[in-house]
Amino acid sequence: MSGVPLRRAAILAVGSELLMTSRLDTNSLFITNALNSIGIEVVFKSVIGDDRGELGDQFAHALRRVDLVVLTGGLGPTDDDLTREVVAEQLQRRLTEDVGITEAIRKRFESRGWKMPEINRRQAMVPAGATVVANPNGTAPGLWIEHGEKGVLLVPGPPREMKPMVEQMVSDRLRARAGGVLLVRRVLKIAGRSESRVEEITQPVYGRWREQQPPIETTILAVPGQIELHLSARGSDARQLAAALAAGIRQIAEVLPHDLFSDDGRSLEEVVGELLRERGWRIALAESCSGGLATSRLTDVSGSSAYVDRSVVAYSNDAKTEWLGVDSELIAVHGAVSEPVAEAMAVGVRERARVEVAVAITGIAGPTGGTDAKPVGMVCIAVTTPQATTVRTFKFPGNRELVKTFAAFTAIDMVRRLLLDAPPNADWIQK
Amino acid sequence: MSGVPLRRAAILAVGSELLMTSRLDTNSLFITNALNSIGIEVVFKSVIGDDRGELGDQFAHALRRVDLVVLTGGLGPTDDDLTREVVAEQLQRRLTEDVGITEAIRKRFESRGWKMPEINRRQAMVPAGATVVANPNGTAPGLWIEHGEKGVLLVPGPPREMKPMVEQMVSDRLRARAGGVLLVRRVLKIAGRSESRVEEITQPVYGRWREQQPPIETTILAVPGQIELHLSARGSDARQLAAALAAGIRQIAEVLPHDLFSDDGRSLEEVVGELLRERGWRIALAESCSGGLATSRLTDVSGSSAYVDRSVVAYSNDAKTEWLGVDSELIAVHGAVSEPVAEAMAVGVRERARVEVAVAITGIAGPTGGTDAKPVGMVCIAVTTPQATTVRTFKFPGNRELVKTFAAFTAIDMVRRLLLDAPPNADWIQK
Repeated sequence: MSGVPLRRAAILAVGSELLMTSRLDTNSLFITNALNSIGIEVVFKSVIGDDRGELGDQFAHALRRVDLVVLTGGLGPTDDDLTREVVAEQLQRRLTEDVGITEAIRKRFESRGWKMPEINRRQAMVPAGATVVANPNGTAPGLWIEHGEKGVLLVPGPPREMKPMVEQMVSDRLRARAGGVLLVRRVLKIAGRSESRVEEITQPVYGRWREQQPPIETTILAVPGQIELHLSARGSDARQLAAALAAGIRQIAEVLPHDLFSDDGRSLEEVVGELLRERGWRIALAESCSGGLATSRLTDVSGSSAYVDRSVVAYSNDAKTEWLGVDSELIAVHGAVSEPVAEAMAVGVRERARVEVAVAITGIAGPTGGTDAKPVGMVCIAVTTPQATTVRTFKFPGNRELVKTFAAFTAIDMVRRLLLDAPPNADWIQK
Repeated sequence: MSGVPLRRAAILAVGSELLMTSRLDTNSLFITNALNSIGIEVVFKSVIGDDRGELGDQFAHALRRVDLVVLTGGLGPTDDDLTREVVAEQLQRRLTEDVGITEAIRKRFESRGWKMPEINRRQAMVPAGATVVANPNGTAPGLWIEHGEKGVLLVPGPPREMKPMVEQMVSDRLRARAGGVLLVRRVLKIAGRSESRVEEITQPVYGRWREQQPPIETTILAVPGQIELHLSARGSDARQLAAALAAGIRQIAEVLPHDLFSDDGRSLEEVVGELLRERGWRIALAESCSGGLATSRLTDVSGSSAYVDRSVVAYSNDAKTEWLGVDSELIAVHGAVSEPVAEAMAVGVRERARVEVAVAITGIAGPTGGTDAKPVGMVCIAVTTPQATTVRTFKFPGNRELVKTFAAFTAIDMVRRLLLDAPPNADWIQK
């Protein structure tokens, strides 16, 4: 095989069960990670049923488009396991039984006191010129085929069989063929901004990166409340790539100084947890429409018991007055969803829990309960310390689940901004 | 467009983020289900990055192989949203701005007090001959293109935008163009059992279904705390299929009478919510290790304010004594994670909130804090009414997030069992 490096890969997951409505191809995440680590980019991945025509056609398509095709699944002993045969046919290589493999499979069965079923012989069929990849956790061996300048890797579908085999190939043959091109990624997480605003603000910055050396590719992704900017750079010099990405991140931080909260994979609740920990502060929460979600997110962080003291989910007005000391008169005058009530809830829980900072959320999650003056999605959030209290009214988009998610995320972000003395979240504040 | 029926479909999910190692294309599950329901089979599905060449090539490949190509994602307003352009190019149709769409997008922004960013104009570009599919939850409209005998559907990537649009298309245009073979599915949800126990108990039942007419296919799926049994049958007679599935469900209910809690899509919290509503009962919660997750799940249900009164997340021992009246002596003697403390928390919150039923959760979510006697995953849950209190200790598998999820789910299930006078959850109880 020639020394042309493998740069672009496709992953084909084979099995009709993967086309059912309850199954996801999770193998491809592991394989993508393994390939990226040696600089091989995955340009597409497909799921195909146990269908000779479809599999043959997709494999041929992939082989035209990429340097490396990884197939998982369809290496079992039964009739519907077609991967070996289809690949051999497409590459025009004869399949012959490898008696060494048959013997190994037979021994595997015998070690458990069983006789090898005759159908397992199919797993010993090897296309001419293929290298056998040992499977420490199962009967189906993997196969590695160098075809002209391309590479084809077949591994079984069960993750505990597939994973060590892919790891082995990556640390050995594939690394040697990868051409030393590295792919380095960084994820920037941004709070308090809509996707289009982030695009407007950052595009003039990242738009220039494609022309530089090394170029940086950018993707924008919206998850409720949070916008992610994914940066990736490719090259052979790890230090140069890291420096280019670090410079890019600094430029984004300049245009979104208060909204960029993570460039190292940490979640918002991890960032806020560390800020609280640094100051030795404890936090308490009073939630209404978010139903405990903000507290649940804060306590997703291991070790959060060091700074999360307590929280009240005060769905009923009685709970607000009895447990948070909110004046029932205040609720009668302003309504439970109002800035004065949010503020009273925050101060109430802070004083009762004797903590340094507290946050309160009250709003209309929907789908019912909205009015013209207080529509579904309107949420009041207050953060308070013994020194100061900030309260804001937001209008979040979407259904009940989204409003809860936005409200919880934004409340935690308001705590972050308070701790960092940063201005409030901009885009969702009600004008 | 001719009357040739659409039988075979491919789903292309577009977005570089879907090729990252942390992202799965879950949209395709929903779309597969929707297409199957009108007898259209999905023969493959692919994930492609925001790359013009790859997307064009995969789309062309799909269009050759199947009758219907569904593309999700890449319809946003930014530079890397290429789906519209690539499809138009491949089908050799001109893209022109639909001023009606521009106006609708502008109004959507204005209703929130914002000005439409100029880049959102891109979302109004429509290939010649395409039909616009309204998007009730976002700015990007969908597109439906009849191309010769084939159909091409473009929908946005965010699930809450994509889902209603696909539902609309399936119940309308696509149903009219499908071949008339029906695929009917039912999902059974089971609590308190591990996947292998469900398999052991139900396999002798569903094992017989493949031989009957119409045959029923079965798949088992584990989500934390909950096991799902997916039943599907295929044929042309809707009534016969429905009857076969109903008979199958009765057989499963016979072998899992107390554990099968839903056969109509309802979640556990919806089922429990309706039971509470029927009795006119209100509920309160005291959570420790689950951090508010049980309350958050209960309040995911629209209208839950009718029966969820309040909840305390008592992470600190002070919160347990001050707000729930748990004797600090009891905590000192038994530890915060113990059946007596769980019981005292439940009774404490029930009495203070003056509700008919309360549930309390205290445990070790990990990864730290475990001991030999009280390992990570050990959780005590108590449910109480003025008449009786039940408390159980569980040992849940997995990491912090999983333990929280199991604990919240199991606590809500204990409320269900109390309301139905059913025996306790079996498989996770500590022996």
